[in-house]
Amino acid sequence: MIPEMVKNAAGRLVPTVINGEKHPPYQGVGKYKPRGRKAAPPVASCADYPSDGNKVVKDIKSALKKCGLRDGMTISTHHHFRNGDLVANRIFDAAAEMGVKDLRWFPSASFPCHAPIIEHLESGVVHHIEGSMNGPLGDYCSEGRMRGTAILRSHGGRYQAVQDGEVHIDIAVIAAPAADPFGNATGDRGPSACGLLGFALADSQYADKVIIVTDNLIPFPCIPWQIHGNYVDCVVVMDKVGEPEKIVSGTTQITKSPDRLLIAEYAAGFVAEAGIMRDGFSFQAGAGGTALSFAIFLAEMMRESGVKARFIRGGSTQYLVRMLEEGLTDYILDGQTFDLEGVRSMRENPGHVNTSPFTSYNYHGKGNFASMVDAVVLGATEVDVNFNANVVTHSDGRLLHGIGGWQNCLFSKCTILPIPSFRNRIPVIVDEVTTLCGPGELIDVVVTERGIAINPRRKDLLKKMAGSSLPIVDIHDLKSEVEDICGGKATPPKTDDKIIAAIKWVDGTVIDCVYAVNG
Amino acid sequence: MIPEMVKNAAGRLVPTVINGEKHPPYQGVGKYKPRGRKAAPPVASCADYPSDGNKVVKDIKSALKKCGLRDGMTISTHHHFRNGDLVANRIFDAAAEMGVKDLRWFPSASFPCHAPIIEHLESGVVHHIEGSMNGPLGDYCSEGRMRGTAILRSHGGRYQAVQDGEVHIDIAVIAAPAADPFGNATGDRGPSACGLLGFALADSQYADKVIIVTDNLIPFPCIPWQIHGNYVDCVVVMDKVGEPEKIVSGTTQITKSPDRLLIAEYAAGFVAEAGIMRDGFSFQAGAGGTALSFAIFLAEMMRESGVKARFIRGGSTQYLVRMLEEGLTDYILDGQTFDLEGVRSMRENPGHVNTSPFTSYNYHGKGNFASMVDAVVLGATEVDVNFNANVVTHSDGRLLHGIGGWQNCLFSKCTILPIPSFRNRIPVIVDEVTTLCGPGELIDVVVTERGIAINPRRKDLLKKMAGSSLPIVDIHDLKSEVEDICGGKATPPKTDDKIIAAIKWVDGTVIDCVYAVNG
Repeated sequence: MIPEMVKNAAGRLVPTVINGEKHPPYQGVGKYKPRGRKAAPPVASCADYPSDGNKVVKDIKSALKKCGLRDGMTISTHHHFRNGDLVANRIFDAAAEMGVKDLRWFPSASFPCHAPIIEHLESGVVHHIEGSMNGPLGDYCSEGRMRGTAILRSHGGRYQAVQDGEVHIDIAVIAAPAADPFGNATGDRGPSACGLLGFALADSQYADKVIIVTDNLIPFPCIPWQIHGNYVDCVVVMDKVGEPEKIVSGTTQITKSPDRLLIAEYAAGFVAEAGIMRDGFSFQAGAGGTALSFAIFLAEMMRESGVKARFIRGGSTQYLVRMLEEGLTDYILDGQTFDLEGVRSMRENPGHVNTSPFTSYNYHGKGNFASMVDAVVLGATEVDVNFNANVVTHSDGRLLHGIGGWQNCLFSKCTILPIPSFRNRIPVIVDEVTTLCGPGELIDVVVTERGIAINPRRKDLLKKMAGSSLPIVDIHDLKSEVEDICGGKATPPKTDDKIIAAIKWVDGTVIDCVYAVNG
Repeated sequence: MIPEMVKNAAGRLVPTVINGEKHPPYQGVGKYKPRGRKAAPPVASCADYPSDGNKVVKDIKSALKKCGLRDGMTISTHHHFRNGDLVANRIFDAAAEMGVKDLRWFPSASFPCHAPIIEHLESGVVHHIEGSMNGPLGDYCSEGRMRGTAILRSHGGRYQAVQDGEVHIDIAVIAAPAADPFGNATGDRGPSACGLLGFALADSQYADKVIIVTDNLIPFPCIPWQIHGNYVDCVVVMDKVGEPEKIVSGTTQITKSPDRLLIAEYAAGFVAEAGIMRDGFSFQAGAGGTALSFAIFLAEMMRESGVKARFIRGGSTQYLVRMLEEGLTDYILDGQTFDLEGVRSMRENPGHVNTSPFTSYNYHGKGNFASMVDAVVLGATEVDVNFNANVVTHSDGRLLHGIGGWQNCLFSKCTILPIPSFRNRIPVIVDEVTTLCGPGELIDVVVTERGIAINPRRKDLLKKMAGSSLPIVDIHDLKSEVEDICGGKATPPKTDDKIIAAIKWVDGTVIDCVYAVNG
């Protein structure tokens, strides 16, 4: 059945009904105004909880029973353990043993380690997954094999959806590297330390029932309490909640590719020459090889110029930690943690400040941090000549990546995409992106190994960079050059008319959708 | 008009309608079960807030206008500045200038410095005050001169009432010793440092509109952000928000009275002999002279026995800070701060952990910290032979004190009231308390200079203390002895039938009420 489709403000055909529920189409940046009130979880009473604060129950199944798990419910998890998560599969194994069906899994993201969920999708225990799907689950979904439609949201969009009541979580299961029997929990210590637990914040605040699962039960109080025990119904102790070596990579590698290094250097140079790098400025860069190299180049330029940042937005890495320790920034505002050095520093250095999708990214708040960041450096799978960008599919149409905080970060004062101009001889600069994730009006600069394209809307930046030694180019010229190298445009994806995923904008509207691929 | 009265589970006649709204009568400890959902504040949009994060407006009146102040609204404030608050009066002065009428003022507590509000009560700008009233406002209310009825709640009860939607705050005004233009705010630093801002947490989370007022605007980010800017609508900079010397007393004094010292020593001895003082235990004591002396005696006993606490619940004082620095406790969990040494230590020592009425006291949460505390030491104005206690009125019936965290703390594993057996030749141990604030079943031990009375319900404690060197007495004998000394019972208060205040229990039910006094 093809749902009713409308053309949204970005000119994309999108469904208005997804999994039986209405979703508004994208109306433009800042145009859709919510009118409702926030989700209202049930009022609890201390009389129903043990007065000694001990909420420990014997295992996940007991906890799910106690929380009233039944057919059709929504269970949420977080992805701070990334590909080392050992908890999510156990939840659905327990649900299967209980004979429960048609669950909606609402992870903040899923990874290859969650491939066993496919079995539960096939058997009917899980109806569909709503959240990023990396690896086998993405393939499964892309092939049109999932019963429901996936809905992909940014980190901020996930908070927004829960806060606004768009997604009602029946039971949140929050895996924690340290917790006390009351349910206070933290991610920054313990054998499975992963840094933060912020992706589970909305879940703890808004779910009807909340279960903490830990392999490291400590006496009350668990300090810091990144998750408040006052939201928690029960605590389960497991042998191991995460495989540390897969949670974060011990040594995040900077890129060795000469092209990528050049891109990173161009991007850092741009930030310096455009006058963004000045005392008290701020920036955010991710954990990819190019982003890491950008941070290293920028740090060097800051040292040379004697410039100090007010804050850097993490994911912390060893490189950001070094900048903090060196005094190149007052603070690192962490949303997650990308390496073990980041976890250590976060635990020990008060210059790290824990943030969450609520503080940093929620578009349905009274402002958020993302728009205050002077420059953000992000990746993309495709960018088109109108600066629209894609992060979830490649040109083959296959769903490969989640959105992460990417959409939220676009609100930065200067959004820079340092990307190769082509990958595997397929152009990255295209006429029109396969899947629209970020509107061009929010993307200011595209930095490739073949030149830097500035969005014509940013006349201020164009003016500043006039006469620059950096190779400023027109994006159309860049595209032509790339097509010449690659021998033409990318082959259009082979898809059928089944919608396998909807892409949400930060305000809960549908900006695009993804179709099933053939073969 | 006398409202409809019912006899509640404690045998007290209470109104069922207060200020035109229904309020359930007290039904017993843990008996009243809420059925609703939490209050749901409006969903905001970043599109309506400045993307550079600068929410500063020129003054309080502009902020109130921007927040849509109009007749009949509820404005809330916090009392972390205590008698040094310079903000609340300015709010109502501005409201008066704007010609607004019939406001409900919902402070977490009011102090003598707020006496100018009487003028606004008289002129009709303020309809009534809902919150503790100390000093002139208490007298004004006690004399039956306020148009509406006061409702007194504990710190936890105030959080509960806001969370449950029982009290809807239209505009929260949060005075802050440090804040950034986005509205992130903290109490632990700046010229008017007061320690915490936790009493304003519910206000920030649930009010429709939130205004931060500061005399110390710092660049984003204000760290720590005890109040999240993501809840804040606008920021006002004032010359001075609090008088530091009145916020906290620089030197909290231990008692010099031999009787009070004896009471404190008995209480500490009881905690030791009853086996409560053991490795990993916890306790809470306030800032009164007797409570401070109790902590000093207990610390000495801990040193002698080599016992270490897991946590102490503050209000921090120099004495608790010393215990933390000496290693006599792992943590101090602070709810507020009672002296400047406490504020300093909180800012510098990670052994302090900020708590709030949500974590510590909210009875409509999934548990709270209060019931996990091994022993709590509290004051009282009266205790009766059934261990019921009063903290808001004396035997003359005049409303003199707020409830503070007192009711919430009663859920401790052992609640101890170290009190003098009489004051000004008026017995403190009575047949029946003038105003019921705490049910006797939650009060375990009354410690006076004439002996220690253990609640007969606590057979375990009676057994443990059999053969103790401490003077264990029956509360009836204690009462007789005191009446002999004082020349009889206290004179009943001279009141008329006008109800001037309702006393809420921790679950939002009405446990008692207070009548107007004559002359």
